[in-house]
Amino acid sequence: MALEKIKSLRALMSSLALDALIVPTADPHQSEYLPDFWKTRAWLTGFTGSAGTAVITKNHAGLWTDSRYFIQAENELLPPFVLHKLKKRTPEYLAWLLENLEFGNTLGIDASLFSADEVEYFNAILAVKQIKVQAVGDVFEKLWTNRPPLVNNPVFIHDEAFTGKSRVEKIEKVRSQLINKKATHHLLSALDEIAWLLNIRGNDIEFNPVVTSYCLVSHHKTLLFIDAQKLSNPILETLNTDGIFVQPYEDISQILQQLNNKHVLWCNKAGLNHALFGQIDATCNLISEASIVSQLKAVKNPVEINHYKQAQIRDGVAMCNFLHWLEKTMLKKQMVSELDAARQVMLFRQEQKNYMGPSFNPISAYQANAALPHYSATVKNNTMLKPEGIYLIDSGGQYLDGTTDITRTVALGPVTNEQKTNFTLVLKGHIRVATTTFPEGTKGIHIDTLARLDLWRQGKDFGHGTGHGIGYFLNVHEGPQGLSPSSQGPGDTVLESGMMLTNEPGFYLKGAYGIRIENVLVCKPGENTGFLQFETITYCPLDKNLIKTELLNEQEIIWINNYHQNTYRLLKDKVSDELKSWLQEKTSPLY
Amino acid sequence: MALEKIKSLRALMSSLALDALIVPTADPHQSEYLPDFWKTRAWLTGFTGSAGTAVITKNHAGLWTDSRYFIQAENELLPPFVLHKLKKRTPEYLAWLLENLEFGNTLGIDASLFSADEVEYFNAILAVKQIKVQAVGDVFEKLWTNRPPLVNNPVFIHDEAFTGKSRVEKIEKVRSQLINKKATHHLLSALDEIAWLLNIRGNDIEFNPVVTSYCLVSHHKTLLFIDAQKLSNPILETLNTDGIFVQPYEDISQILQQLNNKHVLWCNKAGLNHALFGQIDATCNLISEASIVSQLKAVKNPVEINHYKQAQIRDGVAMCNFLHWLEKTMLKKQMVSELDAARQVMLFRQEQKNYMGPSFNPISAYQANAALPHYSATVKNNTMLKPEGIYLIDSGGQYLDGTTDITRTVALGPVTNEQKTNFTLVLKGHIRVATTTFPEGTKGIHIDTLARLDLWRQGKDFGHGTGHGIGYFLNVHEGPQGLSPSSQGPGDTVLESGMMLTNEPGFYLKGAYGIRIENVLVCKPGENTGFLQFETITYCPLDKNLIKTELLNEQEIIWINNYHQNTYRLLKDKVSDELKSWLQEKTSPLY
Repeated sequence: MALEKIKSLRALMSSLALDALIVPTADPHQSEYLPDFWKTRAWLTGFTGSAGTAVITKNHAGLWTDSRYFIQAENELLPPFVLHKLKKRTPEYLAWLLENLEFGNTLGIDASLFSADEVEYFNAILAVKQIKVQAVGDVFEKLWTNRPPLVNNPVFIHDEAFTGKSRVEKIEKVRSQLINKKATHHLLSALDEIAWLLNIRGNDIEFNPVVTSYCLVSHHKTLLFIDAQKLSNPILETLNTDGIFVQPYEDISQILQQLNNKHVLWCNKAGLNHALFGQIDATCNLISEASIVSQLKAVKNPVEINHYKQAQIRDGVAMCNFLHWLEKTMLKKQMVSELDAARQVMLFRQEQKNYMGPSFNPISAYQANAALPHYSATVKNNTMLKPEGIYLIDSGGQYLDGTTDITRTVALGPVTNEQKTNFTLVLKGHIRVATTTFPEGTKGIHIDTLARLDLWRQGKDFGHGTGHGIGYFLNVHEGPQGLSPSSQGPGDTVLESGMMLTNEPGFYLKGAYGIRIENVLVCKPGENTGFLQFETITYCPLDKNLIKTELLNEQEIIWINNYHQNTYRLLKDKVSDELKSWLQEKTSPLY
Repeated sequence: MALEKIKSLRALMSSLALDALIVPTADPHQSEYLPDFWKTRAWLTGFTGSAGTAVITKNHAGLWTDSRYFIQAENELLPPFVLHKLKKRTPEYLAWLLENLEFGNTLGIDASLFSADEVEYFNAILAVKQIKVQAVGDVFEKLWTNRPPLVNNPVFIHDEAFTGKSRVEKIEKVRSQLINKKATHHLLSALDEIAWLLNIRGNDIEFNPVVTSYCLVSHHKTLLFIDAQKLSNPILETLNTDGIFVQPYEDISQILQQLNNKHVLWCNKAGLNHALFGQIDATCNLISEASIVSQLKAVKNPVEINHYKQAQIRDGVAMCNFLHWLEKTMLKKQMVSELDAARQVMLFRQEQKNYMGPSFNPISAYQANAALPHYSATVKNNTMLKPEGIYLIDSGGQYLDGTTDITRTVALGPVTNEQKTNFTLVLKGHIRVATTTFPEGTKGIHIDTLARLDLWRQGKDFGHGTGHGIGYFLNVHEGPQGLSPSSQGPGDTVLESGMMLTNEPGFYLKGAYGIRIENVLVCKPGENTGFLQFETITYCPLDKNLIKTELLNEQEIIWINNYHQNTYRLLKDKVSDELKSWLQEKTSPLY
């Protein structure tokens, strides 16, 4: 089957005079999660993981992915695809192409699936061997016969009662920055940025309530490029009233072609796809910087923060229901699989007000499976839970008033002393991050280390960042901020009051078990002028059965007791009597 | 006087058709400390601080420097020079030039005083206004009549007993990396790199035992470009025997012109001056990366580390002598100024074996003066010490077996409760850095935060990095590593076993006092595989009068007691009976 696809693809490549083709994991909006229509890499290679790049030449078919996906890729990749293990998360396939292509060869890409910056980088690297990068459009149009259609789900309004700011106010803020920089137009291509700016939401991408569109803000009007079918008449009128005018999705190219040397376009070349970037008239002046919206969106306003806390309380209720159910089920020695548990946590969320769906595919992982930080239970590997050892559940919900993301690691029965020690070390790091205070100007990279200190002391560590930004009824992973050890990207962004981040240190022992403790933090002014601190706004007990109190200092014990007391206070009146008793016991003080 | 200089300079600029001239703080080797010959900026402006850039146009004369030097610059700058306060340490004068020069103007520079990267950056920025950057050579040749001559101090050999590796071995290491990268030549222009590679030392720059030269390593020979007068016949023969051939200093240009398309030159454009870079034949292939030597030199070998510890013991003896003397002098209520104290610490170092001179100009600062981290006592501002409050001494020595850098902050009499609190907070950060263990791959930026956590908790911080790399009988500030909060530069370098760094957190209260505690660390394998840790190798008591034991946890008290015990053990047999008693008391346990 895959051999057939490759054969047809190579025939097409030959007709286009291509020596190689790159098939990335991307859509034209550089989305993290893809609409089914754009899952070409998965269709071609069989590998369904969320990151990876396929490269096809005349005599090689390779897939490059990172360590999170080695096992999955080995299981799923269809012949003739060969796995190339990425050492770092960089485009190492470029080095491979440089070595394996001949002088003067031609490499094909769908330019709409790469950012303008990426294509510039490709050109610079491949120039040493005079390899030409050729935009060939979407070659899968012809090859992929049963391709899922592009979705056209309706748009709905995200009410101002939830957003705290009208679209008019938000656009005004963008305009004032536009004018400050002497720019005339601001182009938005990231779907969550457009949804935030216009207070609209949709269902075009699984887990992400976004709307396929482009948006162009100028001094006097705002253009939304979108398939008109997605908009009801009342919504269209609402947008028009607010000075937002709708044009067909495809017309963005034509508008960009009409810009000229009197215009200054602010766009983000690191996010704008190269095909569209190429449509901008050559005479138009450019400012390439992170979009104005990405920063505005990251700093949550007080209305959003208050709503968000309410959503977190409901999410906490769902999580407590789930953990209580899990405990009972284990006690009764009933059969539960990882997939059953993942389904159950979604069911409990569905009972909650304002719930709109999961914010990502839950990670429900028992013992050794949890040692893969991005494990995904499938029908194939689905494991039965046993009343012993530890279980990890990383899940979240989309609510009209917030996006949640929480991980709890719990004992299903007897656990080892070592498991308790490691859980406690992870917890100490989690608390150190949660309780730190730091001066304005501090970046995520400066905070990230705090989560690791206690693990380091024992010669242990974890292989992912400590946390990511999180959207407000938007994408669960949101920039620009993050708690990462990398000196580029999210870790290099200055933290500001109002930013939300996850705090999710972990520990993974290959073949044995995995631990992660994840709460959401909001950044707020500290007690001292010029300083900031975090407030934890996820409310759900931590499993005391996994805590070794003797490894904690007094401040850590006080923090846990306060956290539990606060959780009980916020949830107790929202749960059944049975659950209330359970919660009382789960949140009782450690000492 | 300055008016005269500016008048002559402007006449010269006019004759060269220049609209502006930049006068940096630099020499052709991008040295941190300058030979007197290159102190043109100080001569022209009157400002003697170690960082600053003068810009002269037809109607403006400005000096840009950073916050460390605002007060000093205000005191020293001669009219008509105007102080421009740098917000960050970036070339903000470029923005000023862009705003104040006309379209098509010409800016003059001495291209030998800027790196190739810098000049490229200038060109890119100034191109928007079509401002031409013109290399005009050394304009001060004619203007500066009493200019100090270029020194020609003799070179001496740094014995292999000290270096642990012969120059032949070192060159072989460089060659193997050169061959790995398919490069044919490696050009060294940083003076400490040449001194390290060839195991030579000199006296061409104050505080830095380096030799003015260039060095070109190819697959079969090594060329040293140097004034032959500096070399005695035996040294010349030694070098020749080891395959190092000497050519006149100026000949480097000619050799670079002879390279062609068969050659691949590895040079560091961020360090190589633009004038010399321009001599490289255009057909020659280039690799621009940090020099091979900078990394090799940073990782000290076991022989160097062992010697270094011996030098540190002697330096500790000198420091103890000094602190003991200071205490006695204060008790006797004798008059001592900051300059007297600085002189005294140098005198005690002079008594030590292998001492070659100070490693930098000591910072001897009483109370409010110490609030300026880079305070320099001069005849003008020299302050008398009183038997009250706190005094800071930051000093170091060059020894044949190591370069030292130590800061102690001590009570000269009664101190305030607040001073003790802040000293203890700084000490807690110092200990946290000294005792951490961390996985391979960790960078200085990840460690830097540890020094600040306890200060942050109180809404306090300090405005400099936690530490810098340090040379071995070489420059006191040495790259590429460092403990810095910046995500670029030294903080972004991965720490490796054998690297040496200072650990010097501080706290500064403007107008009141300053605190800094500085020891040298060596990075070594940790107890767990894949982990590293530090060993503190500066031996000198911390002032217990400034420590609030109640703010310390048990581990911190244990660390201090062990540190003191170790210091006593290493120094006790090397000091007089009187000093031994003093040391015993100073290093007695806290509990």
